[in-house]
Amino acid sequence: MAANALFKDSLTVVNVGLGGFAENVVAASGQCVPLQWQPPAQGDRAGAWALAEILGHPLVERANATALERFLAAHPVLTGIAPAREAIAAMANERRLILHAGPPIAWPAMCGPMQGAIVGAIVLEGWAESVEAAQLLAASGRVSFEPCHHHGAVGPMAGIISPSMPLFVVENKTAGNRAFSNMNEGLGKVLRFGANNAEVVTRLRWMASVVAPTLRAALGRSGPIELKPLMAQALNMGDEVHNRNAAATALLFKRLAPALVEADVTREAAVATLGFIAGNDHFFLNLSMGACKAMLDAAAGVAGSSMVTVMARNGVNFGVRLAGTGETWFEAPANPVDGLYFPGYSIADAAADLGDSAITETAGVGGFAMAAAPAIVKFVGGTPTDAIHHSLRMRAITLGANPAFSLPALDFAATAAGIDARKVVDSGVLPVINSGIAHRVAGVGQIGAGVTTAPMACFTAAVKALARQLHAIEEQR
Amino acid sequence: MAANALFKDSLTVVNVGLGGFAENVVAASGQCVPLQWQPPAQGDRAGAWALAEILGHPLVERANATALERFLAAHPVLTGIAPAREAIAAMANERRLILHAGPPIAWPAMCGPMQGAIVGAIVLEGWAESVEAAQLLAASGRVSFEPCHHHGAVGPMAGIISPSMPLFVVENKTAGNRAFSNMNEGLGKVLRFGANNAEVVTRLRWMASVVAPTLRAALGRSGPIELKPLMAQALNMGDEVHNRNAAATALLFKRLAPALVEADVTREAAVATLGFIAGNDHFFLNLSMGACKAMLDAAAGVAGSSMVTVMARNGVNFGVRLAGTGETWFEAPANPVDGLYFPGYSIADAAADLGDSAITETAGVGGFAMAAAPAIVKFVGGTPTDAIHHSLRMRAITLGANPAFSLPALDFAATAAGIDARKVVDSGVLPVINSGIAHRVAGVGQIGAGVTTAPMACFTAAVKALARQLHAIEEQR
Repeated sequence: MAANALFKDSLTVVNVGLGGFAENVVAASGQCVPLQWQPPAQGDRAGAWALAEILGHPLVERANATALERFLAAHPVLTGIAPAREAIAAMANERRLILHAGPPIAWPAMCGPMQGAIVGAIVLEGWAESVEAAQLLAASGRVSFEPCHHHGAVGPMAGIISPSMPLFVVENKTAGNRAFSNMNEGLGKVLRFGANNAEVVTRLRWMASVVAPTLRAALGRSGPIELKPLMAQALNMGDEVHNRNAAATALLFKRLAPALVEADVTREAAVATLGFIAGNDHFFLNLSMGACKAMLDAAAGVAGSSMVTVMARNGVNFGVRLAGTGETWFEAPANPVDGLYFPGYSIADAAADLGDSAITETAGVGGFAMAAAPAIVKFVGGTPTDAIHHSLRMRAITLGANPAFSLPALDFAATAAGIDARKVVDSGVLPVINSGIAHRVAGVGQIGAGVTTAPMACFTAAVKALARQLHAIEEQR
Repeated sequence: MAANALFKDSLTVVNVGLGGFAENVVAASGQCVPLQWQPPAQGDRAGAWALAEILGHPLVERANATALERFLAAHPVLTGIAPAREAIAAMANERRLILHAGPPIAWPAMCGPMQGAIVGAIVLEGWAESVEAAQLLAASGRVSFEPCHHHGAVGPMAGIISPSMPLFVVENKTAGNRAFSNMNEGLGKVLRFGANNAEVVTRLRWMASVVAPTLRAALGRSGPIELKPLMAQALNMGDEVHNRNAAATALLFKRLAPALVEADVTREAAVATLGFIAGNDHFFLNLSMGACKAMLDAAAGVAGSSMVTVMARNGVNFGVRLAGTGETWFEAPANPVDGLYFPGYSIADAAADLGDSAITETAGVGGFAMAAAPAIVKFVGGTPTDAIHHSLRMRAITLGANPAFSLPALDFAATAAGIDARKVVDSGVLPVINSGIAHRVAGVGQIGAGVTTAPMACFTAAVKALARQLHAIEEQR
């Protein structure tokens, strides 16, 4: 267009990025359409260059297709309930090992609720007599701390697993891999939110001695329970199977109760166990997490893949792992969680985003499936329309969709599935996560629930590492 | 506007009603906005005049406010389970009385499935040895047939209640009125869809001898169960508590199971009863109906009120009752049901709309609350958007909204509540009803499910009667 014409005709300007440029146009009575845009990797130049190298890369595309296929083909089944020391090899010996949520972290760096939960677990195991003695022992270096994810396990919030705790054993019948999750204690003052008083420890002992063997007996009668259809049904009943598990818990209950009555357990144990599950709408959460872990582990270890297989938080850092980058964690400081706080608390009281439960979002449910769960906004904040928008937005950063999980409110569209770290870095759209909120001080417990996002820096670091890995592969050729 | 100006200016025509007039305008290159409109009462002049007399009538407005208030204040609670002969006074003596769905109808006029179900009930009661003998007895006049609604009861589809059948007893704790409903048999070949073979009768005997006493014992432990909060929760979990009761059934199950294990029943009876409920996602339907009946009966008997308290179908006629017109039925031929048919069947095989279950729509749930249940369209047809539109459209014909029942997909809006017969006649918007579909021949059973509407003529007749009643009242003054 000749400059002449340009200055004669009426103009409509599209302003990309910084709003400042648009202001002058508008001030001069011009029209301006603002386009929200920011550079890839939120301005990290090296990250953007790394991204440019692997966007559309045929090896990455092929690897992602394989990883996504393995994830979609997974068929997680609850096959058993066993104490951690039996389920997890590293706990079999007499070593004092405690697993925690998120990427690795040393005792002094841990957030309050994680330290509180570890202290409770030490008392539970009888390694110390009192909370004070347990604190000294934890700080002494004579207890080992490792991420749940290093042992095929997941735990919500602090995610503490100690040797005597009963674990759900979830097997992916397609590939044979197994995942483990601890058992949900309910709401209020519970270990996973950092509470550790006598009531908490007594409940955990009772869960190990009464609930676990009773459920094991019921599972013996019912046979293994397929978790994917159960989650799919719950998504059609208002759950997103992360922070809302009311339907999934009721469906599991309906499945277990007749078997439990048939099983060889005392009436007292049966009544107590049924009452415990019936009284906790979050009971299914840990099974949802175990199922997601089993599905995602099936996708791990595909060289070159940029598919995210783990998102987890230790209350300080947020960590992700890719299918293509082995056991490396890519970390960044965890975001705070905005949401609905219980009366008397605010974001100032909150620990940073915490827990392995973001494995649900990694698997395309939880925040990614919020469109299925309009009623969850009463718990985490926002409106049903926000919930639908979260699910729609996640399509921008995923490799495909999971036909096993449908969203009724979106005309039964399949849930977005397989987060592609490249798409996150490229689009600036961050994975959305529904989360409980723990008080930052040990011992207080839950103070709310809300919605947060994974930090960009994890994905940028992961993309850089994947680009380096591709260089190495190409040099070998 | 001067005729001169009229013919000079460009015109935009709004065409009200018949499309034919618009055609000429469009043919002459004019623009025309069609307005869908039809005269009140679908052209019934006397109906429209009667409507004009009672629209905005202060007595009707006051009466409706009272009726709606009593309906909204109702607090239905499951208090017991008892054989029909104990619950229903008219069955206490040795009289051979069978109750059926919808308005009154004589044996020869009944549809196939209702005759089939009655024959099954006669065999169940031992009044005849065989299906053939039962048919002869039914036709002989030596068995009485009366509507469930004449005895405070409701039954889905054929709605057959005979003396030995166990009934749920639902009490409205606010006003003290009681309602009854029979117990859901499950899907497939069942009495309510007109099946009557040995399997059907055997199951009914087992329900009376095992399921009912077991549940009664559980209810003794759990104490009375409040149904309104349970329905409200289910509406937040994808049910509309008419044709989808998956969540409500699971919630009821979760409530009953621990009590059932504690109760003094055999393990065999406990396992069988739990299995029976766990295997039938429609189990809660009859309780939903009982609760709706108890809520609506609270509104009955308010002189001058045009609020609909009953909509029910006997498979031939559709009948409604108003709060202001006592026990009079206003009837019209029942509509066919459009929907999803099981393989091999079509609308040609279907009985007309059948059952007392439209009591749920009368109470503002079921079809009126379809926005809560997007997944129901897999069962009754249509899309989740249709489901939302049904709920929105029903606001045009209701007196108010029920804050106890919210629709998450509509930002937790309260459900439309209290159908105003005047508004139906005035707007031409017909109450939407979700319904099962029975084969028109006795003994075949269910062949599908779908969505239908109540016929206009019932409401026009009701409006005429109410206008006459107001004349009488005004003449007495």
